[in-house]
Amino acid sequence: MRSSQRQADQLRPVRITRDFTRHAEGSVLIEFGDTRVLCTASVEESVPPFLRGKGQGWLTAEYGMLPRSTHTRSAREAARGKQSGRTQEIQRLIGRSLRSVVDMTALGERQIIIDCDVLQADGGTRTASITGACVAVHDALNLLVANGTLAANPMRDMVAAVSVGVVDGVPVLDLDYPEDSACDTDMNVVMTGKGGFIEVQGTAEGHPFSRVELNALLELAERGIAQLVEMQKQTLGI
Amino acid sequence: MRSSQRQADQLRPVRITRDFTRHAEGSVLIEFGDTRVLCTASVEESVPPFLRGKGQGWLTAEYGMLPRSTHTRSAREAARGKQSGRTQEIQRLIGRSLRSVVDMTALGERQIIIDCDVLQADGGTRTASITGACVAVHDALNLLVANGTLAANPMRDMVAAVSVGVVDGVPVLDLDYPEDSACDTDMNVVMTGKGGFIEVQGTAEGHPFSRVELNALLELAERGIAQLVEMQKQTLGI
Amino acid sequence: MRSSQRQADQLRPVRITRDFTRHAEGSVLIEFGDTRVLCTASVEESVPPFLRGKGQGWLTAEYGMLPRSTHTRSAREAARGKQSGRTQEIQRLIGRSLRSVVDMTALGERQIIIDCDVLQADGGTRTASITGACVAVHDALNLLVANGTLAANPMRDMVAAVSVGVVDGVPVLDLDYPEDSACDTDMNVVMTGKGGFIEVQGTAEGHPFSRVELNALLELAERGIAQLVEMQKQTLGI
Amino acid sequence: MRSSQRQADQLRPVRITRDFTRHAEGSVLIEFGDTRVLCTASVEESVPPFLRGKGQGWLTAEYGMLPRSTHTRSAREAARGKQSGRTQEIQRLIGRSLRSVVDMTALGERQIIIDCDVLQADGGTRTASITGACVAVHDALNLLVANGTLAANPMRDMVAAVSVGVVDGVPVLDLDYPEDSACDTDMNVVMTGKGGFIEVQGTAEGHPFSRVELNALLELAERGIAQLVEMQKQTLGI
Amino acid sequence: MRSSQRQADQLRPVRITRDFTRHAEGSVLIEFGDTRVLCTASVEESVPPFLRGKGQGWLTAEYGMLPRSTHTRSAREAARGKQSGRTQEIQRLIGRSLRSVVDMTALGERQIIIDCDVLQADGGTRTASITGACVAVHDALNLLVANGTLAANPMRDMVAAVSVGVVDGVPVLDLDYPEDSACDTDMNVVMTGKGGFIEVQGTAEGHPFSRVELNALLELAERGIAQLVEMQKQTLGI
Amino acid sequence: MRSSQRQADQLRPVRITRDFTRHAEGSVLIEFGDTRVLCTASVEESVPPFLRGKGQGWLTAEYGMLPRSTHTRSAREAARGKQSGRTQEIQRLIGRSLRSVVDMTALGERQIIIDCDVLQADGGTRTASITGACVAVHDALNLLVANGTLAANPMRDMVAAVSVGVVDGVPVLDLDYPEDSACDTDMNVVMTGKGGFIEVQGTAEGHPFSRVELNALLELAERGIAQLVEMQKQTLGI
Repeated sequence: MRSSQRQADQLRPVRITRDFTRHAEGSVLIEFGDTRVLCTASVEESVPPFLRGKGQGWLTAEYGMLPRSTHTRSAREAARGKQSGRTQEIQRLIGRSLRSVVDMTALGERQIIIDCDVLQADGGTRTASITGACVAVHDALNLLVANGTLAANPMRDMVAAVSVGVVDGVPVLDLDYPEDSACDTDMNVVMTGKGGFIEVQGTAEGHPFSRVELNALLELAERGIAQLVEMQKQTLGI
Repeated sequence: MRSSQRQADQLRPVRITRDFTRHAEGSVLIEFGDTRVLCTASVEESVPPFLRGKGQGWLTAEYGMLPRSTHTRSAREAARGKQSGRTQEIQRLIGRSLRSVVDMTALGERQIIIDCDVLQADGGTRTASITGACVAVHDALNLLVANGTLAANPMRDMVAAVSVGVVDGVPVLDLDYPEDSACDTDMNVVMTGKGGFIEVQGTAEGHPFSRVELNALLELAERGIAQLVEMQKQTLGI
Repeated sequence: MRSSQRQADQLRPVRITRDFTRHAEGSVLIEFGDTRVLCTASVEESVPPFLRGKGQGWLTAEYGMLPRSTHTRSAREAARGKQSGRTQEIQRLIGRSLRSVVDMTALGERQIIIDCDVLQADGGTRTASITGACVAVHDALNLLVANGTLAANPMRDMVAAVSVGVVDGVPVLDLDYPEDSACDTDMNVVMTGKGGFIEVQGTAEGHPFSRVELNALLELAERGIAQLVEMQKQTLGI
Repeated sequence: MRSSQRQADQLRPVRITRDFTRHAEGSVLIEFGDTRVLCTASVEESVPPFLRGKGQGWLTAEYGMLPRSTHTRSAREAARGKQSGRTQEIQRLIGRSLRSVVDMTALGERQIIIDCDVLQADGGTRTASITGACVAVHDALNLLVANGTLAANPMRDMVAAVSVGVVDGVPVLDLDYPEDSACDTDMNVVMTGKGGFIEVQGTAEGHPFSRVELNALLELAERGIAQLVEMQKQTLGI
Repeated sequence: MRSSQRQADQLRPVRITRDFTRHAEGSVLIEFGDTRVLCTASVEESVPPFLRGKGQGWLTAEYGMLPRSTHTRSAREAARGKQSGRTQEIQRLIGRSLRSVVDMTALGERQIIIDCDVLQADGGTRTASITGACVAVHDALNLLVANGTLAANPMRDMVAAVSVGVVDGVPVLDLDYPEDSACDTDMNVVMTGKGGFIEVQGTAEGHPFSRVELNALLELAERGIAQLVEMQKQTLGI
Repeated sequence: MRSSQRQADQLRPVRITRDFTRHAEGSVLIEFGDTRVLCTASVEESVPPFLRGKGQGWLTAEYGMLPRSTHTRSAREAARGKQSGRTQEIQRLIGRSLRSVVDMTALGERQIIIDCDVLQADGGTRTASITGACVAVHDALNLLVANGTLAANPMRDMVAAVSVGVVDGVPVLDLDYPEDSACDTDMNVVMTGKGGFIEVQGTAEGHPFSRVELNALLELAERGIAQLVEMQKQTLGI
């Protein structure tokens, strides 16, 4: 039994609230336990310069943590004048993950911009971001279908993500902050609804990990993500 | 009757939710109609260099808008690498307003940092920020009393703020975004619970305004702020 | 009698020198006592992107203090790599004030850029800047009339500004630096030549101010600005 | 047979030149085929603020590409004024990888700074960087032993890295630039000399990858890294 | 006869006004014809970190051009967020030049900061800056003698500078802006009062220059600087 | 005899290696003794905005030092977010020097970008950069001739540079780092193959220098540069 009273293969309670804010084409508050991330998807009728005139769309993501989403206050990146390496790493990951399930040609010359802003952090903010952003992007694309801009939703599959790690020698699913701080190995896994891998990022924090541990972690992640995809679909009614 | 179906002297529905997030010493979600701002107050056991060893505390504020809190997406300030002039103006205003009601000597050598982050914008984000931050700071200071750090709460009075403006020739209270965009004169007023003025910032948008208009606006503001202070006290149970 | 041997409602000696430098279309040195600001107005035959093709002009302002215009040297903003919040607040105020009296459609698709650079500071640099910039802009616009670019000067009215404040309990006009540092309430007022208000920015420094004090300050400001406008007109020979 | 005339499980020719430059405590030019990276390790007798007085050392890494190390010239990051997200991601990876094999307590309160600068790029610059940096750090630490600062070299194991990927449906080892641009799945693997995993970072470029492909890639990586470690040891004579 | 009606070896009218502004320890407006630079010298009772505790002083310089000191408006460096290469080159030159004539040990652990701000530019701003800064620094140091901080003025000699160039094949002294724009070779020379060279910076603008031209230019510069030093001494009454 | 066992008028061993890296149109490693600089010349088929449509080309240069090219590690400019004044001064010098020998009209509307990156520093990095860049640019231009883009190589002459200085009272050629740190006067001289001067930059480090010393230094430089040009031509086979 984990400190959070969960089984090793048990997700935290997940809640997905659509239309959390008014202005964005897609707006989702996703909660993985105490981790809460506001994911919005905005549609812009232009693409970055390198894609102009190529007849295809683009999707990009930005990520931020509110200064007091964390246990002790973190400096505001806008005030420091630059985004940290961690922030850039995460927003690049979110963008790649979502691009993997959207048909850019079917999207046409327009851009989806995802914003993932962490209101409260308790571990797993990047995996919650990806999972929530998928729903927000789906909503934004549906709006383009509803208003006649697109004939069909160009999202080809769901995408969701979860963290797994070895804590006190035991592989566990969906780490909260205390587990994340204490774990030996930390892995973030991104998969599609059909069960293909999009990203696998494993890091040994303390001592190196073995193929056996890696396999155990991947199995946990596969099961967790399958549940997350189920929740996404249920939320979207598809 | 205004486009929002309000009387000229009527506030939008105001909602103040304490403990909106877990980690901050004070955390308040304030809503002025569709404007929603998350205000947190963080306590740090140090002061800026210019105050070290002077036996007094400090309070400062930062402000930000989530990129898609607005009708069309605004660029993320952390990504652009600097805060806009508007952002700096607002956070300086919030800091001055709150400093005016906290006894810095009674606070001791520690610092309160306010973060006001706009989740959804519909006009009046700076006045909602000040009004919400007052509650968050009160909570954070109460915590210092509760844990024995301070003998008494060093907040000497409430502080609240509201916008007023001349819309279609009529002075009205608490402008929403459509009114704010269309008004001739826009004024932000900050007052204490006892009815003293802390800040008066009036700007002619279209043509100049007169002393008569100024007086009408100040009276609206006085009445609106008195109601806001009442709500703050009710929320705090004081 | 004030420390500066002035009556409560007395301006400092004001001097306005036109054509202080050669290259700018308008170049004015304005002195409010020991405060000296060089205000230039430059004409550029283009407008910012958001106005292109809209058949109207624009006016914007920048402000700076020479590092040793102040009692102790201030860091050079160009070396620090960014403008302070105070600088941005002031240059935004100068721009808004001047835009309120220039007919942007009559100006045509061109831009006036005001530069206010403080050579010596002794309080009231922003109000001196606005008052001087008005003369510089008038000169620059006259040049456009003289060279046949415009049929008539698109400045519809004068604009001037002054600070007022409560010092030792007494409302006084046009604060110098020692008064500004010691005052309870500080207010900057911007008005047109016809007596309309453009900006009113009052801040309680020590304790809150009352409507009575506010009214007394506004009356002082009205009288001071009327004198400043008179001097502007005399200088311009209009 | 690959475009580079290599077998699927064949590394490019690897060359490790120690003492490539004079000033650094460790200086290694590593070549993976046409990819050439200069890795230096510098010793500084101080640690970052967060570690002061804790009796342990630190190791960090920076990475850069010379502007014309690439097929078409890339903008110089020093001139643009910031490091790209990719650069930060890579230098964080190099730092984590090397920290995993150095005993920070045995190092004492001093810091190793690794600089990996790409002189010529042809794919795999981050994996070459880690592999070369390991030799450079080993040399720098040996110098501390030689001059009596340390009793023994605090590097506990070798660390090396290689890329693997699925190109035209076939899992291959150590991708060069044309392969990297064309591959479906790209994975960077970092392992210790003893065969433990430090990092596994796999990304689907085109379509998702399966567990079977993942396993095939990991096996290729294990074999490749074992050879790289052998070369490191041979070069170091250990 | 030159376009400016001067002889080849004739300086422009030079005017040096001491105490141009009030706050700085030394404040000089220097004019070389239409070029006008405000040079202030500020004394700070601390030295940069690299000199702390070494029992000697330091002198550094900063340079800037007001945006409309030039024929067409230049962007404000504080707004662009960085100083240009040209600005940095010039302020480094001013600092080196002045350091060459001040005895840093006699100065003690304090710092002189020179600010040279160009109010109006017509060629030769850097040479005017050096020549004016010398007088401002002398004044600031005299103040330290007058208030008993120093026993004697630690400036060992005067330093002055002038530009020379080959215009239409003729070597001429003290180029104004039209000459500077048209010249083949441009040289800035810095010398001490005793006639020693501090800096010689010659640049071929069009075609290379010869030893013969170089010698002719150096002779012009020597004569010009001797006159400038005479004026400095006369101004200072020494 | 100098510390480096050289005669006063003796260059360090100079080595010029063409095609040091693969991707650049011109790529040269130049060594002046222990100073090693990688100089690349890149061709881009566009010119900066200020030259568009003018029928001529441009050439610009960037310079950098690898962090551990120096005795103690220097901070990475990309990480600090800006280039130092020294870096900018040097890259401007390299650009001016090379532009002086390339016929911009014959080049056509394209740009040569030089990158000089110091792999190892031992004094004279800027002079080595200029000397090496000349060969790299020549190679890049020859490539444009070879592929039919240009009818003839638009480089009109060689350009090379060397440092000279007064060390222990003796004028010497091509200072290494220990000499450079100890010298009284330091001068960098840039000349064309035909013997014309492009740049002369002399700086008194300790006490001022005289015309006699200046002449001695220029003579040493002339002889040194003649030898360098000879080596450039031999390397290029012209």
